[in-house]
Amino acid sequence: VVVGDIREGSPRVVFQGDEGAYSQLAMKKFFGDDVDSIHVPTFRAAMCAISEGSADYAVLPLENSTAGIVSEIYDLLAEYEHYIVGEQIIEIKHCLLGVPGAKLEDIRTVYAHPQALMQSAKFLSDNSSIQQIGMKNNAFAAKKVAEEKDKSQAAIASAGAADVYGLKVIKEGINQADSNSTRFIIVTNQKVFLKDAKKISLCMEIPHEAGALYHIMSHFIYNNLNMTKIESRPIEDRNWEYRFFIDFDGNLGDSAVKNALRGLREEAKTLRILGNY
Amino acid sequence: VVVGDIREGSPRVVFQGDEGAYSQLAMKKFFGDDVDSIHVPTFRAAMCAISEGSADYAVLPLENSTAGIVSEIYDLLAEYEHYIVGEQIIEIKHCLLGVPGAKLEDIRTVYAHPQALMQSAKFLSDNSSIQQIGMKNNAFAAKKVAEEKDKSQAAIASAGAADVYGLKVIKEGINQADSNSTRFIIVTNQKVFLKDAKKISLCMEIPHEAGALYHIMSHFIYNNLNMTKIESRPIEDRNWEYRFFIDFDGNLGDSAVKNALRGLREEAKTLRILGNY
Repeated sequence: VVVGDIREGSPRVVFQGDEGAYSQLAMKKFFGDDVDSIHVPTFRAAMCAISEGSADYAVLPLENSTAGIVSEIYDLLAEYEHYIVGEQIIEIKHCLLGVPGAKLEDIRTVYAHPQALMQSAKFLSDNSSIQQIGMKNNAFAAKKVAEEKDKSQAAIASAGAADVYGLKVIKEGINQADSNSTRFIIVTNQKVFLKDAKKISLCMEIPHEAGALYHIMSHFIYNNLNMTKIESRPIEDRNWEYRFFIDFDGNLGDSAVKNALRGLREEAKTLRILGNY
Repeated sequence: VVVGDIREGSPRVVFQGDEGAYSQLAMKKFFGDDVDSIHVPTFRAAMCAISEGSADYAVLPLENSTAGIVSEIYDLLAEYEHYIVGEQIIEIKHCLLGVPGAKLEDIRTVYAHPQALMQSAKFLSDNSSIQQIGMKNNAFAAKKVAEEKDKSQAAIASAGAADVYGLKVIKEGINQADSNSTRFIIVTNQKVFLKDAKKISLCMEIPHEAGALYHIMSHFIYNNLNMTKIESRPIEDRNWEYRFFIDFDGNLGDSAVKNALRGLREEAKTLRILGNY
């Protein structure tokens, strides 16, 4: 099914985390501030919510410009039969949040998602007496610090999360890189491809034999298709076999795309179109 | 410099972690049980040790067959001017370790490297009351549990680590996949390429423009070179620009390899040969 605007008709949207999460920011930027939304504790629960129909769309972080891919999302895309219908990039500006009155020298423990810890590695290594504890979401970390009211605890999250939970911004912009963005994808359980879509995402398992990746690549090159991204993820239970995630420019209606997909289907053990958006 | 066997002449080897770490297992399998070794707390410290000459070689985990790449190692390979001179694959069998007398129902907190937590995700989600805390190394986690002597604490590490620290194996093989291996690389600060080497690893930054990845790929295809792996990592401070890590079969003496490298150097913004081993 080819559709126009997925923002029409008051969709219900699910994101992982809690009030003040970066996923919520991305969702509001894509669907608007008044979007009807729910939040769930895990990425898997967000995938389940759209499978079961308790939400129409999920907004999920796919990669960060500093820390790289969110590997769990790639694995869930391979596991669930869902489709990508859009993407939204937002700028990430991590802040160190503490309870009101807390100062940097009070902090003994910092809670955050492991990606946020990685993105703040330089700051944390300059303050190496602070113990780092991984959480499922930065907003959960902020909530925990707010609830436990302990001056020695801090969270890494957005300035928006400080407002939501009544925390103090102890230090702003503790990310390593000046420019740090996260690319979120909008996922649904319906096989919809967008009109005027310009980007195709594929997921492929290729045979574990010499030359297999070479043959896969050649279908893009011979059809003059511009591959913009390739990621490999290990296939569970099969040592050193990989599943490839490829993004390239094109529309499923283009003849070069059709030609490449025909060739790729013959070469690959499995091939799934994740989206055209 | 082309050399024969790097195991000759009693090399000093550094690994990250502590007694009982998987890196130590990999080191012993590659260099032999009697190898002269030191251990350091971080991957960066291991890279420093070979820069400064306090060790000749470092043994570092590059990727796991279930959890994927160890992204920090890729980033350090790009930062340091070191060379890969070998690789060693070892099987990973994670165990839940507690103090003597501890039972699964006693455990409230589990300490392990985030990769080990990911690899044990199914077991941990079946026992979701256990809080997960990330540590820099599984052997550190085992040491901590042994030192704190608290029945409610457990570590995820190898059965060998249980022996080293006098811990009890509460549950064996808690990894998700039956087959779970980690590929370690052997790194040195000397520009040495191995005689009869069959694999080349490259690190490249390519221009941020349409078709750049396409042109890079074509040099492998037109020279009939079998690319076995490609990984992209974000370049710090440059949003959505990537550094590519490519493995392919070949020897730097082969004319097809020379031809491809000549073409790649023209195309890439930077190109570095990480090793031929």
